Amino acid sequence: MISQETIVALASPSGAGAIAVIRISGKDAITIAESVFQSVSEKKISNQKTHTIHLGHIVDEGKTFDQVLLSIFKNPNSYTGEDVVEISCHGSTYIQQQIIQLLLRKGCRMAQAGEFTLRAFLNGKLDLSQAEAVADLISSDNEASHQIAMQQMRGGFSSEIAKLREELLNFASLIELELDFAEEDVEFADRTQFKELLTRIEFVLKRLIDSFAVGNVIKNGIPVAIVGEPNVGKSTLLNALLNEDRAIVSDIAGTTRDTIEDELVINGIGFRFIDTAGIRETKDVVESIGIKKTFEKIEQAQVVLYLSESQKSKVKSDELTIEIEKVKNKYSNKTIVAIINKVDLLSNEEVRHIKEQLSTFDFQLSTIFISAKQKTGIDELKNQLLSFVNTGALRNNETIVTNTRHYDSLLKALEEIQKVRFGLDSGLSSDLMAIDIKQALYYFGEITGEVTNDELLGNIFANFCIGK
Amino acid sequence: MISQETIVALASPSGAGAIAVIRISGKDAITIAESVFQSVSEKKISNQKTHTIHLGHIVDEGKTFDQVLLSIFKNPNSYTGEDVVEISCHGSTYIQQQIIQLLLRKGCRMAQAGEFTLRAFLNGKLDLSQAEAVADLISSDNEASHQIAMQQMRGGFSSEIAKLREELLNFASLIELELDFAEEDVEFADRTQFKELLTRIEFVLKRLIDSFAVGNVIKNGIPVAIVGEPNVGKSTLLNALLNEDRAIVSDIAGTTRDTIEDELVINGIGFRFIDTAGIRETKDVVESIGIKKTFEKIEQAQVVLYLSESQKSKVKSDELTIEIEKVKNKYSNKTIVAIINKVDLLSNEEVRHIKEQLSTFDFQLSTIFISAKQKTGIDELKNQLLSFVNTGALRNNETIVTNTRHYDSLLKALEEIQKVRFGLDSGLSSDLMAIDIKQALYYFGEITGEVTNDELLGNIFANFCIGK
Repeated sequence: MISQETIVALASPSGAGAIAVIRISGKDAITIAESVFQSVSEKKISNQKTHTIHLGHIVDEGKTFDQVLLSIFKNPNSYTGEDVVEISCHGSTYIQQQIIQLLLRKGCRMAQAGEFTLRAFLNGKLDLSQAEAVADLISSDNEASHQIAMQQMRGGFSSEIAKLREELLNFASLIELELDFAEEDVEFADRTQFKELLTRIEFVLKRLIDSFAVGNVIKNGIPVAIVGEPNVGKSTLLNALLNEDRAIVSDIAGTTRDTIEDELVINGIGFRFIDTAGIRETKDVVESIGIKKTFEKIEQAQVVLYLSESQKSKVKSDELTIEIEKVKNKYSNKTIVAIINKVDLLSNEEVRHIKEQLSTFDFQLSTIFISAKQKTGIDELKNQLLSFVNTGALRNNETIVTNTRHYDSLLKALEEIQKVRFGLDSGLSSDLMAIDIKQALYYFGEITGEVTNDELLGNIFANFCIGK
Repeated sequence: MISQETIVALASPSGAGAIAVIRISGKDAITIAESVFQSVSEKKISNQKTHTIHLGHIVDEGKTFDQVLLSIFKNPNSYTGEDVVEISCHGSTYIQQQIIQLLLRKGCRMAQAGEFTLRAFLNGKLDLSQAEAVADLISSDNEASHQIAMQQMRGGFSSEIAKLREELLNFASLIELELDFAEEDVEFADRTQFKELLTRIEFVLKRLIDSFAVGNVIKNGIPVAIVGEPNVGKSTLLNALLNEDRAIVSDIAGTTRDTIEDELVINGIGFRFIDTAGIRETKDVVESIGIKKTFEKIEQAQVVLYLSESQKSKVKSDELTIEIEKVKNKYSNKTIVAIINKVDLLSNEEVRHIKEQLSTFDFQLSTIFISAKQKTGIDELKNQLLSFVNTGALRNNETIVTNTRHYDSLLKALEEIQKVRFGLDSGLSSDLMAIDIKQALYYFGEITGEVTNDELLGNIFANFCIGK
């Protein structure tokens, strides 16, 4: 399964910077690096120790590409477990490309997404859930997601699963043993202890499965769409939330055409705010494409901030509350926050009137009065958004599942465990019970990678970035 | 002058990637790194050899930030000449920030732009023109600019200047010696040899000064504005040149509002193409801002591609040639290429008619017939653009000046050398001649950094990226 080819990729982020790192891994890594590297000290790098760094030039056919530092890692003491060479070059994209192209000419192959980590997994440097945590760690952009990925990478999740698996395996072998003595009707596996173990496994699985809801939110950020009629101040609200001039604002209705997205981390939780084109009838072709997109974005959002302007006329005629009630009914499956903007233009009397009107609704609705321009009410809005996220598990430092694949396997494992328990309760024969236990063990193994196949690995590592 | 503080910065490009590199330099670099690093092998890194790599974790107050590789470079064997530690961490921007913030809390200071290279210069690891070449190397994005920067970084330019400076210095000291024996009217410096040296210096200086025009173009790319009336196919031409769908194209006049810029490297020379809003009277506020920008972009451009549509009516009425003549007169200081688009809609007869009309102009004008949509004539246009660049010096591997500061110093040095030569020809006294020679030496020294001051260094290194 492990490819014999030597692979190369840019390991540092793409773009220009002070330095860039190009990584080579495979059995010919050192030989290939040696063929293009002239050490300043004129030492041969193949004779050098592992974990040493050498100054020199990348040279081919008399042409010097760059002055670089070259790091050597000899197998098995490397990330992949193979021979690895890292070239630290000047960070121009041109130089990066030239060196990678040179290495390709010298016999390397371009690494596929995640191939370095795949090789690390295949060489036993980390288990599958740890390998997946590497990708999560790289994409983590706030404290919560970082903490979860770090815990998973250090094996917190794997060891919890592995422990349960081992106990279950123990019982499984006792039950299998009973099959050998089927004629004699003996019970090697203590049914009471077994039942207790199943209860414990069920409890852990349910907790892990439940953690997925919060885990998923932490990993991907909560999508929040800002919607409303044109010119009620949606872009101004986005700018106020982000505290920067992200979106162009003007007094002209229909200024925003493209949807604008940006992330904000509030207390370690990521929110993805989506500013949309104002919803109205329009003949402008570009604007109407924008409005179509707005409806798509509302579908994707978990929270909808419905922004209304507190025009005097609207307040008097109760048009505002009617409008909000309509929106709430239309998007009944979303969490809606009604936001009344430009509150600075209202009298206390008018605010009280609106509040009264809104309180007559027969559904629960969060309402917040703000002035996006003067940035009042923004903190209240942020607290409201945070209240939608249950961060209990995070605070208690429990293992949290963030990966859809793990979630799937956990659900399936739970189903099998429940079958085993039902079998146990109803006095099912050992041979049939053994089948269900085996199946549960299979799903446990899928998570950590004891059970695997090419397609599964392909799917997992395709989501990695190239160079990792 | 050298700051005693220990500095830190991200050295790899910003953004997320497989790995990121954080660089620390200064006398406390190793102590500070040690305070946050737990080696897997439990060795103290301060006891480790230079140019070695160590696996471990970044830990503070019981919290693990990341698993990292730590590289040690002990002074003077490092980039800056000081103790340097490089931390190779997982490439999430969150982790990068967290580790840098931790190091700041532990006593590092954020590095200023170019401060690592400034320290390298102050510690004598490279001269000033070599230090400047580092920045050029990082921003080089094509073969030509890379080659020039690489040559300069390896000392090609410095050594050419240093050699002349040394010879001149030699004569200067002989002339100074004559001053000590002024009473006796002796000539230690052979006037014929001296004259010959001055001729040689003048020749080299002139060649270097002349090379600046091409060097500047190679370094910055040639700005090429694509202009014309709305809907003549400017964005389609940009897409055809870049061979990708860079700009939105539609049949609606005024589709492009913001100016769109993109680079294309043709035969190793960079061109910056600027697609602009079509010039017309409009009441659309956003579009008119775009048109105002168009005129600014034309000012910045070196080459203007004036695109016209070959409408039948225009051809017949000679409106097309009148339009082009107007443009040529308006931008007489620019290189104009007249491009007739949609040539596929014209008969051979009509093409010939236009050509005849254009040939009656009393100025030189390049005209190219293309079909942007069908991508015909694009290669001809590229060749035309290349013909504007004199790449002779590049082919002959001569030293090329790309830096405005060097260009300035070279001009001033030449002026002084010409004064010396004039003095020599007119029998000027040694003491006056010595002053001019000193001044010429001063300007030579400015290039390589033998003569320098804080303000000059500040200006140079402010243009570097942080982390270099």
